[in-house]
Amino acid sequence: MAHPLKGITILEMSQGLAGPFSAMTLADLGARVIKIERPGTGDESRSVPPFKAGKSACFAAVNHSKTSIALDLKSEPDRAVFERLLARADVLIESSRPGAVERLGYGWTDLHARFPRLIYGAVSGFGHTGPDAKRPSYDLVTQARGGLMSITGHVGGAPVRTGASVGDLAAALYLSQGILAALLDRHHTGKGRKIDISMLDAQLALLETAIAITSVTGTPPAPGGTRHPTIAPFEAFQAADGRFVIAAGNDVLFEKLCVALNLPLADDPRFATNPARVDNVRLLKRLIEAVTIDNTCAYWIAKLGAAGLPSGPIQNVDQAMRDPQILARNMVVDVLDRNGRAAFKAAGNPIKMSGIPDATTRRAAPDLDGNRGEILRWLEE
Amino acid sequence: MAHPLKGITILEMSQGLAGPFSAMTLADLGARVIKIERPGTGDESRSVPPFKAGKSACFAAVNHSKTSIALDLKSEPDRAVFERLLARADVLIESSRPGAVERLGYGWTDLHARFPRLIYGAVSGFGHTGPDAKRPSYDLVTQARGGLMSITGHVGGAPVRTGASVGDLAAALYLSQGILAALLDRHHTGKGRKIDISMLDAQLALLETAIAITSVTGTPPAPGGTRHPTIAPFEAFQAADGRFVIAAGNDVLFEKLCVALNLPLADDPRFATNPARVDNVRLLKRLIEAVTIDNTCAYWIAKLGAAGLPSGPIQNVDQAMRDPQILARNMVVDVLDRNGRAAFKAAGNPIKMSGIPDATTRRAAPDLDGNRGEILRWLEE
Repeated sequence: MAHPLKGITILEMSQGLAGPFSAMTLADLGARVIKIERPGTGDESRSVPPFKAGKSACFAAVNHSKTSIALDLKSEPDRAVFERLLARADVLIESSRPGAVERLGYGWTDLHARFPRLIYGAVSGFGHTGPDAKRPSYDLVTQARGGLMSITGHVGGAPVRTGASVGDLAAALYLSQGILAALLDRHHTGKGRKIDISMLDAQLALLETAIAITSVTGTPPAPGGTRHPTIAPFEAFQAADGRFVIAAGNDVLFEKLCVALNLPLADDPRFATNPARVDNVRLLKRLIEAVTIDNTCAYWIAKLGAAGLPSGPIQNVDQAMRDPQILARNMVVDVLDRNGRAAFKAAGNPIKMSGIPDATTRRAAPDLDGNRGEILRWLEE
Repeated sequence: MAHPLKGITILEMSQGLAGPFSAMTLADLGARVIKIERPGTGDESRSVPPFKAGKSACFAAVNHSKTSIALDLKSEPDRAVFERLLARADVLIESSRPGAVERLGYGWTDLHARFPRLIYGAVSGFGHTGPDAKRPSYDLVTQARGGLMSITGHVGGAPVRTGASVGDLAAALYLSQGILAALLDRHHTGKGRKIDISMLDAQLALLETAIAITSVTGTPPAPGGTRHPTIAPFEAFQAADGRFVIAAGNDVLFEKLCVALNLPLADDPRFATNPARVDNVRLLKRLIEAVTIDNTCAYWIAKLGAAGLPSGPIQNVDQAMRDPQILARNMVVDVLDRNGRAAFKAAGNPIKMSGIPDATTRRAAPDLDGNRGEILRWLEE
């Protein structure tokens, strides 16, 4: 069967992470993605280590399955190529500073007048409106200013950055959603729309519990270590050989946990309800660890798992990449080189859809301008 | 103009965070969402603190703009209501343990045979395939097992949980994407599809740089504090009155930073390229802080901003919710109560789309079974 986005062409005039990641998720759904890069250096991610055979693994991780053409949008011949591409495309993704494409004559208003079916997906640090629209940003600025960093870290310690670039990635995932919604909308209206995604907005959209706590109590949450702010027990616990996590998200699970640990707490008013457990969370942790310290992580994960309780190991990325469940789900794929040999590893497509093949490899990330001839020939078709 | 999902009806038979958050994002795009809850207790999030006037702020944050009907799917009259809803719906979202809906006769195979246009969106801890398909999970288990926790925390310290529930939310955002792609696909095929999202898969999909590092170097990254693992300078720096962040993601920005700080490092071979800066990141940090320590965060953020450099404050959630840029983008909205008065705050919709109104309020989160009469009347229409 055909992939859902078969026949959809996306021009990705972007670099870094947010725009390329969004386009990659749409490529995994079947879209053709043509990457439009600056002549000379191309996407700045091409210079991000680590490298293998001179190529950036980080670039490959989010730019596989695309083709590349280098265009100088201040040169007339390249502008003509770009405009022929726009005429064939369904979607333009761009992540330049607001105002930059307008100066080239390729802002939303101009493009919508000339290519009314084209969907225009913009992702920027702060969005195209508001006092800081023109400020530059990166993931770290988003995580810091957006509040996520302030709730991440050890209890009593300084805020830390979340190890994955969720400032970029949340924006990327919302951009993909917006583009898909606009494609649906176009079935009814025949017209494209502009989607204006701000990394800062997208970061704020992930703070559901933190916003709820702040607005009701007046006090913003601080870093909580491994603990959830409003559910207990829901954190890491010490075992004989390390730490593992238990997440008992409701009263039924807490009762099961008490049985599995042989801890008579389920009828204790200090722990009988989730709000009571949250109020007494430090005492609860000490009582649980008095039991878990006597055996290994593996012992407790097996025992709690058999009792139907959510628990698990704290795995490093190497362990996660070898996890039997991850492998069974085809979530680590090979990115090929130009000769069809496995060159890099990348995450698979988490959108598993009935009747749609879930490939175990990905086409090579393109060399800069590596597909110019093929793209120009396609324009002649 | 009409919202992109106007006319689309979604049944959300889910609880907690992932399923409800996905349905909420689709409600923000214009879909009608009917929440189907267990009689008696309903969604377990209803008992998650903090509360206001007896209602959970966390529940309201992700369940506004929906209606609710309580159905016992083991009772024949309620099954009849559910089946009439299925006949009217475009999408079913469910997040039960794999096998649970099958036992009720409402698994994908049965539903697809009876309601061939229905799209079936499932989100679960580990997905519907693989050795751990039937294990229960929660956000914390996903963050721990999926590797994100292992790369988050202070340098040399123990892993911590990311303060937002990205284990749930990444899965939710992929589910929304999958549902939108399936709606597009249905325009061509006339048929619904099953989407099978695993929280663990979705978590792995966010580890682009970490997977690249692990697979090329053989060594998984450890917690990096505020620092990006492969870009420098890209971390928090000490000023006279606290810390702020600088993210100089390429050589041009690094040169601008050297000028702004009056630091003659841009031609130094230890710092001339991003890979060299990453190799010498600790020395680079000391050299930068020798300058930044002499003035305040606000001074440096203004000075670097004027020089076109990405930098910013580390804000707590209260500060983020009052940030002029956030407010200008309508990213903090009022969730109303049943009387139309502002009751809770929630994040706005980060998908800003041309021609689509961006409301500043949201309809109240429903009481359990609070819309039964209205839903039954709608079925008669």
